[in-house]
Amino acid sequence: MIAVDWGTSSARAYRLGPDGAVLERREGAGGILRVPEGGFPAALAGMIGDWLAAGETRVLLSGMVGSRQGWQEAPYLACPAGLDDLAGAVVPVPFADATVRLVPGLSAGDAAGVPEVMRGEEVQVFGALTRPDEDALLCLPGSHSKWVRVESGRIAGFSTSMTGEAFAALKDHTILGRMMTGTAEPGPAFEAGVARAAEAGGLLHHLFGTRTLGLFGRLAPEDGASYLSGLLIGHEVTSALADGAATGLATVRLVGSGPLMALYGRAIVLAGGEAVAGDPDAAARGLALIGERSAWM
Amino acid sequence: MIAVDWGTSSARAYRLGPDGAVLERREGAGGILRVPEGGFPAALAGMIGDWLAAGETRVLLSGMVGSRQGWQEAPYLACPAGLDDLAGAVVPVPFADATVRLVPGLSAGDAAGVPEVMRGEEVQVFGALTRPDEDALLCLPGSHSKWVRVESGRIAGFSTSMTGEAFAALKDHTILGRMMTGTAEPGPAFEAGVARAAEAGGLLHHLFGTRTLGLFGRLAPEDGASYLSGLLIGHEVTSALADGAATGLATVRLVGSGPLMALYGRAIVLAGGEAVAGDPDAAARGLALIGERSAWM
Repeated sequence: MIAVDWGTSSARAYRLGPDGAVLERREGAGGILRVPEGGFPAALAGMIGDWLAAGETRVLLSGMVGSRQGWQEAPYLACPAGLDDLAGAVVPVPFADATVRLVPGLSAGDAAGVPEVMRGEEVQVFGALTRPDEDALLCLPGSHSKWVRVESGRIAGFSTSMTGEAFAALKDHTILGRMMTGTAEPGPAFEAGVARAAEAGGLLHHLFGTRTLGLFGRLAPEDGASYLSGLLIGHEVTSALADGAATGLATVRLVGSGPLMALYGRAIVLAGGEAVAGDPDAAARGLALIGERSAWM
Repeated sequence: MIAVDWGTSSARAYRLGPDGAVLERREGAGGILRVPEGGFPAALAGMIGDWLAAGETRVLLSGMVGSRQGWQEAPYLACPAGLDDLAGAVVPVPFADATVRLVPGLSAGDAAGVPEVMRGEEVQVFGALTRPDEDALLCLPGSHSKWVRVESGRIAGFSTSMTGEAFAALKDHTILGRMMTGTAEPGPAFEAGVARAAEAGGLLHHLFGTRTLGLFGRLAPEDGASYLSGLLIGHEVTSALADGAATGLATVRLVGSGPLMALYGRAIVLAGGEAVAGDPDAAARGLALIGERSAWM
């Protein structure tokens, strides 16, 4: 089977063995935003045509490729939802050279009834579980970070924070960015931002402190992005751990890759939680598990 | 005396009678960002040259005109500070046709020792007090909103929130703005945003709800900006009232002008506080009070 985690800005394809092991992996040409209208069959063929020619017949897709802006819309499945629910709701997509299925995203409501949605992360969550009946709290850092509660192996609910996108907007389009050089790195400035997030006054007040600390020479320009990142991730983590504590979960399984993993790991520890790294191939593993359970006829 | 409240993006000039009454007022050509290097004497002459020709000899300036980017830097005075402290610290500025003085800004530290600064708002605060020995909590909405605690007629401390600038960055430079038309208005959508701010989850999570409510048809595009504004102002007001409550102050005197006044007034009431309108000519009145106490030789 071929598994493709196809998001807004990137695509990752995996050729899987019968036991779900990753035999081969590659980055595709780009996310769904780069695919012209009607161009998904050609984009898929370009990404994995040689694997199909070598005999693969099944392709399972997850992520924003199943959104209204993607290849075809796969309606959200409501939480709580487990692996079997996802496998039973895969959507067939017309494609000449193989049987192609889309995994639907999930929807939920938070405590106040405000809707939540995800596409792609649900597959990573199931791929990162270590037992089928597990209770777990998982964090998937990103432009829109997800915190996911798993109860008895099913996704019970989740919460999204616009931390990454807010960071970019504040850094690039407010006065804060004028005093910043470089990127966000783990270290003392990041940790000072996380510590600040635990203090009174609220995020909008803490943001202004980024500027005054710079004005008074207490935050160097090369540390500004790290401090701002610590402030935002610190606020997100503090709120999410408070929610987690309410359900008795203090260990956070971090799922993803790249520089955000180290930043979130450090912020979780500083906020009093425990962070463990999830399987870096969680998307491939999750798609393998869903593929096993899906009807391919 | 002539009083000029000269900020980053606007300038307001007042001709005052001997008792401090406003005889005449005008908007100047623009804020300090529009003044070319070395151009402040000409900009002042252009704004109030006719008043000087008619016999005025004293000009008192406040605001960002006293910053490093302004005419001349007037060092911050540390809080606590009262009218007499400001009057004793005015800075002379060379000008051919009149005696010109700059009112310094104020600095302070918040509970955690992070610096705070203001330039111009301190004058409005003193102009908005109703008794010289008053205890009061004042809010000056804006791009960088200020919440100011006055104890026995002196500014004891203050807190800044980057609410207005964060609103603009999030609306214009994140996915949230794609679903928004129109501007922020008081009304049910604004109030829903304020109510949301009181719920668990934190601001970064609440931001994402702006998107999902739109996706699920529960927030119309023309209501998006009002909801986002309510969310941000709600978070600011909730934190600030918690601080105010700690010092026994629940009535907030709102100082300023424009559409933000109605939004903040409504948010304060919804968050359980009481809002009263301050003197709309607070800047002119504050400069008059400082002018009375200043040495003009």
